[in-house]
Amino acid sequence: MDQPWTPRPKPENPERLERRIEFPDYESNRHFLEKLNDLSEQEGRFPDISFGRTYVNITLRAEGADTPIGEADHAFAAAIDGLL
Amino acid sequence: MDQPWTPRPKPENPERLERRIEFPDYESNRHFLEKLNDLSEQEGRFPDISFGRTYVNITLRAEGADTPIGEADHAFAAAIDGLL
Repeated sequence: MDQPWTPRPKPENPERLERRIEFPDYESNRHFLEKLNDLSEQEGRFPDISFGRTYVNITLRAEGADTPIGEADHAFAAAIDGLL
Repeated sequence: MDQPWTPRPKPENPERLERRIEFPDYESNRHFLEKLNDLSEQEGRFPDISFGRTYVNITLRAEGADTPIGEADHAFAAAIDGLL
């Protein structure tokens, strides 16, 4: 059967901010992750995080379910940058 | 041009162990991640970890570059289970 037009980006795959950060060693990586944890708890925002020994990937979604990335999200991203 | 046969799984995408764990809240998730960090440092093994507010995904690769998953890897996976 023919398929209807599919909107892109998909509604279930909304706009987001991503950043990859590399560290010289696990010690500095862990130190950053601890500060990020504290910031997350303080702000009540929990981005999706992937990490290995010397890298962290952060994915930040908009606060609301169907809202685009806005000022509050860029401010939170800047606060994360401030931890570095 | 014709392509040669491609081995699967690809050599650059080797065998690994994966486990997803869900938590009732961020507090218990964070507590688990801290224990996992301590275990990683103690063993000198740093699996790839993804997490959000209430979940953790762990990907464990074999110790050696070209070695299949073996006893030491299953033992490390069991040690992670022991943290729960």
